[in-house]
Amino acid sequence: MTAPNRATLWGRTLVDELAKSGVTAAVVSPGSRSTPLTVALAEHDDIETYSVLDERSAAFFALGRGRRTGEPTAVVCTSGTAAANYHPAVIEANQSRVPLLVLTADRPAELTDSGANQTVDQAKLYGDAVRWYKTLPEPAPEARRLRSLRVAADRAVAETTGSDPGPVHLNFPVAKPLEPTETPGDVPDSLADEAPLAVDGRDGPFVRTTSGRLEPNDAAMDEIAAALGSAERGLIVAGPLNPGVTDPEVVGELLDATGVPLLADPLSGLRHGPLVADRPVFGGYDSYLDAAGWPDPDIALRIGASPTSKVLRRYLAEADARQVVVDPAGDWPEAEFTATDYVEADPGAAVSALAERVEDRSPADGDRGGDASAAAWRTRFERAEAAHWNLLDEATESATAGTPFEGAVLSEVVTGAPDPATVFVSNSMPVRDCDRFGRPRRADLTVLGNRGASGIDGITSTALGAGSATEGPLVLVTGDLAYYHDANGLLSVARCGVDATIVLINNDGGGIFHILPIEAFDPPFTEQFVTPHGLDFEHSADMYDLSFRRATDIDDFAGAYRESLTSEGTQVIEIRTDGEASHRRRERLHERVCERVAEDR
Amino acid sequence: MTAPNRATLWGRTLVDELAKSGVTAAVVSPGSRSTPLTVALAEHDDIETYSVLDERSAAFFALGRGRRTGEPTAVVCTSGTAAANYHPAVIEANQSRVPLLVLTADRPAELTDSGANQTVDQAKLYGDAVRWYKTLPEPAPEARRLRSLRVAADRAVAETTGSDPGPVHLNFPVAKPLEPTETPGDVPDSLADEAPLAVDGRDGPFVRTTSGRLEPNDAAMDEIAAALGSAERGLIVAGPLNPGVTDPEVVGELLDATGVPLLADPLSGLRHGPLVADRPVFGGYDSYLDAAGWPDPDIALRIGASPTSKVLRRYLAEADARQVVVDPAGDWPEAEFTATDYVEADPGAAVSALAERVEDRSPADGDRGGDASAAAWRTRFERAEAAHWNLLDEATESATAGTPFEGAVLSEVVTGAPDPATVFVSNSMPVRDCDRFGRPRRADLTVLGNRGASGIDGITSTALGAGSATEGPLVLVTGDLAYYHDANGLLSVARCGVDATIVLINNDGGGIFHILPIEAFDPPFTEQFVTPHGLDFEHSADMYDLSFRRATDIDDFAGAYRESLTSEGTQVIEIRTDGEASHRRRERLHERVCERVAEDR
Repeated sequence: MTAPNRATLWGRTLVDELAKSGVTAAVVSPGSRSTPLTVALAEHDDIETYSVLDERSAAFFALGRGRRTGEPTAVVCTSGTAAANYHPAVIEANQSRVPLLVLTADRPAELTDSGANQTVDQAKLYGDAVRWYKTLPEPAPEARRLRSLRVAADRAVAETTGSDPGPVHLNFPVAKPLEPTETPGDVPDSLADEAPLAVDGRDGPFVRTTSGRLEPNDAAMDEIAAALGSAERGLIVAGPLNPGVTDPEVVGELLDATGVPLLADPLSGLRHGPLVADRPVFGGYDSYLDAAGWPDPDIALRIGASPTSKVLRRYLAEADARQVVVDPAGDWPEAEFTATDYVEADPGAAVSALAERVEDRSPADGDRGGDASAAAWRTRFERAEAAHWNLLDEATESATAGTPFEGAVLSEVVTGAPDPATVFVSNSMPVRDCDRFGRPRRADLTVLGNRGASGIDGITSTALGAGSATEGPLVLVTGDLAYYHDANGLLSVARCGVDATIVLINNDGGGIFHILPIEAFDPPFTEQFVTPHGLDFEHSADMYDLSFRRATDIDDFAGAYRESLTSEGTQVIEIRTDGEASHRRRERLHERVCERVAEDR
Repeated sequence: MTAPNRATLWGRTLVDELAKSGVTAAVVSPGSRSTPLTVALAEHDDIETYSVLDERSAAFFALGRGRRTGEPTAVVCTSGTAAANYHPAVIEANQSRVPLLVLTADRPAELTDSGANQTVDQAKLYGDAVRWYKTLPEPAPEARRLRSLRVAADRAVAETTGSDPGPVHLNFPVAKPLEPTETPGDVPDSLADEAPLAVDGRDGPFVRTTSGRLEPNDAAMDEIAAALGSAERGLIVAGPLNPGVTDPEVVGELLDATGVPLLADPLSGLRHGPLVADRPVFGGYDSYLDAAGWPDPDIALRIGASPTSKVLRRYLAEADARQVVVDPAGDWPEAEFTATDYVEADPGAAVSALAERVEDRSPADGDRGGDASAAAWRTRFERAEAAHWNLLDEATESATAGTPFEGAVLSEVVTGAPDPATVFVSNSMPVRDCDRFGRPRRADLTVLGNRGASGIDGITSTALGAGSATEGPLVLVTGDLAYYHDANGLLSVARCGVDATIVLINNDGGGIFHILPIEAFDPPFTEQFVTPHGLDFEHSADMYDLSFRRATDIDDFAGAYRESLTSEGTQVIEIRTDGEASHRRRERLHERVCERVAEDR
């Protein structure tokens, strides 16, 4: 018999085709309407299922997996507001180009807009935030419909991973019975014989899809390569880029060919790894690009999303420089509106094309007049970096006791992370501190964050989802508000079997507001912005059976951190800081670096 | 000086006008872009602000307040995914017609689609789920723009509370400076003199809005009143109705005029209160309408949303009866598609019109031939109710020890609730048990639930929001999954100063799945549907400083419940039940009631 009923046939066919298209994991939240999908996923040997009870956390978990792997994770929920809980993660997936396959079960068409229970308008629920939306055909034992289901599955997977990866939403309306209950006659026994292709699919995907790569315009590459190759003060700026999008080796070739400094965002995948070996890869720029007398670049090549560093963004905005923005999918990630060139191309392809051209030019081109200036430009960066990291070390050493400095925590996290490791940094201050205080390392660190929309709503789940996709250790650095916001996500430690070292920087509220002018207006500053909550997070660790340790100072933290990295299970290491004091120390350190760099001219 | 800068002017003007339009409460989540609104709200004496850190919980809190009061609560967040976290509550507000005023701060137009941080497409973020969407004009010291802001505020409030109440979304783009920083020249000193009306508004609302009431068609009322007045087996069925929508006195007049039984959903506002005094108001129907031989009605008048009781819905669907559905706003809340009449009218207006007409007819109309049959029909209900409630009492008394029966918990909650009280019941099983086991009482109980989309994602916050709007005691009855889902909402107990008695029925997973056929398929039943999590919720009570007590049996629960109702602070009373065993007891009790009712013919 083909299937006990049409709903089961539908669930099995869709899941079979998703697996054949390469989907290997699904995050499922409990619900009734989604039963045909849930049952088929549980039955399928090639898809790992994760059961996550809170749909908001579920979608972020899937997002984290997709971010880490570059492959779509399916996320499955029942009808109603469950699907709306996916919205934050869908937006983040959209804006940070993470493959995510959203499958929402729905009531059949006759029940929409009828007052039926748990029935909402799920059509285009996420608006323009998805790459593709489709209402799947309702189950029926018909060959063409079945084939359309397989084709939709293949297309959905392809759309999540095309040249502009992102979320896809398949809405799955289905009538009862939802369970694999024998329903004689519902699916004719003859169907499998009459339509074997539709029922069984093919050996591999029903439709093999191959994505193209957007190659840059040749003439533009010639011209930009010439400009970059002969620049006196060239720069390559890498903003956040998902793992696997841009091959570091290719970037290395361009660095070697041009000798131009690379300013590598902590989320670019280029600040850590093999690239950082005798190459001009810099990470301390947030501390010194605004130093007095720091010269403008004459050309900057930008890949990836808008950089985390505001100092860097402003520096580029105020420079009288040619700015070449490379992006594969029309997002024009340049919110200061000073870019001079927009290159629509895969960033790896563009970098590769430039590296080839610069190399080609070098031997024949006698007048790379910038050589001496270019070397001086690199040296300037090297000395500024040295100033920054040395001053950070001095400041950290001189203040190991007392209220810990948040920047020192991030410095320690990055320096002490094992090789390899996945490090996930929350929004608000951790990513900024990771940017400024996370030193470039040759180690294979995959540093991730949710910088598409920069929410703090699903940080823990995103990190755990990323961790679920890798054997190596996972470190999450989060603040108290983000930790509180997605506390439900901690259930995935046990239910999804992901271990982590969770560094919880607790400054009892929104420390970030200390860097904003609202600080001068209290009230309402404390009550409405900082929002001190006084929560004792040891209770939440107890609730989820995690070990919990409160570090008293940076040394104590460093010890607990290293111990956790070699321990089984999940440890929460809380370090209580003072948001305002940390802000003052950031400012002081910044001033000192700028002063030293200015003196150094 | 009018305002230190245009952003402050904008925030103050909007908030001033909202207050003048009658908004008395706002739920604010911390964020930077929303600073002009947050500061203005904090400054305003006539608007109470509640600070809620998790935006999902924040929107549900505002929803709960709106549900309890019938007046819109504003909910304010920063730009980005924060706004998407409102989506579940916006959908619930839409479908259950609760006024809700969503204010999302946004980046100015130039930053949309530019790669700028924390910038997402917020236009029409909630699709068709809002009554009205408007992007507010960006701040500028111009009289017409300011007037437009005031008019938009008045209109927004009016749209939330019109004949089809619901959510409204105002998107508030604003550029820096966001804080009330003195910015000379940004708002000319002369503006207040030149445009006093725009700057100061009027004494009351800028535009006084008055909502009309949708009166029913006279001819239809004549005809339906005649049918109802002469029916042998007439019924009035009240589904969920928000407090204040339908005056119980008017319904009482119709009951008195017709003598027809009222089947009152627990969420109809009619099962409890003054109506329940020598009038045929029934609440046990979910137990006996499917008894063998129970006759069909000849006419049923339906007001409110689709009833919670599936037995009732099926009974009406299978009856060969005239079914008159009254609804003010085109939702046609009848998903069995057997209604014969749709009356577009305010339900109170329709009931009132019918009551007048039936009264008018009675004296002159000699042939109310149905009188004897109508009396027999009422008696039949009375006897069936007696059978149901007696059997429930017997079953409860015979089983006070041992694993508690979930139905007995709800019975105790309703019977023991003080007068007055607000009782909020979660979706999934509590609302169903409240329907079947919550006995009609004369007491002033306001029983609420989120039955628009029937999610379990914001139950605690909705309940606390409702509690924030009333002096009387608040009881929340929730299951473990709903409690877990919105655990963040518990922070509002302390931060928003709401006390509650929280009855936590913990059957360690999705007890509701035991009533579905998927129960027969394990795996995946236990792992993917019931999802036992083993959480010890005492830790979450500790985290939020709530007192926690685990009741061992029904008697112990009853004691703890009564004690809590007279205690200060918030108590969580957990009662551990067995979802499957409770389901079996529901089934057995249902069978016994049906048997007794069938014997009683």
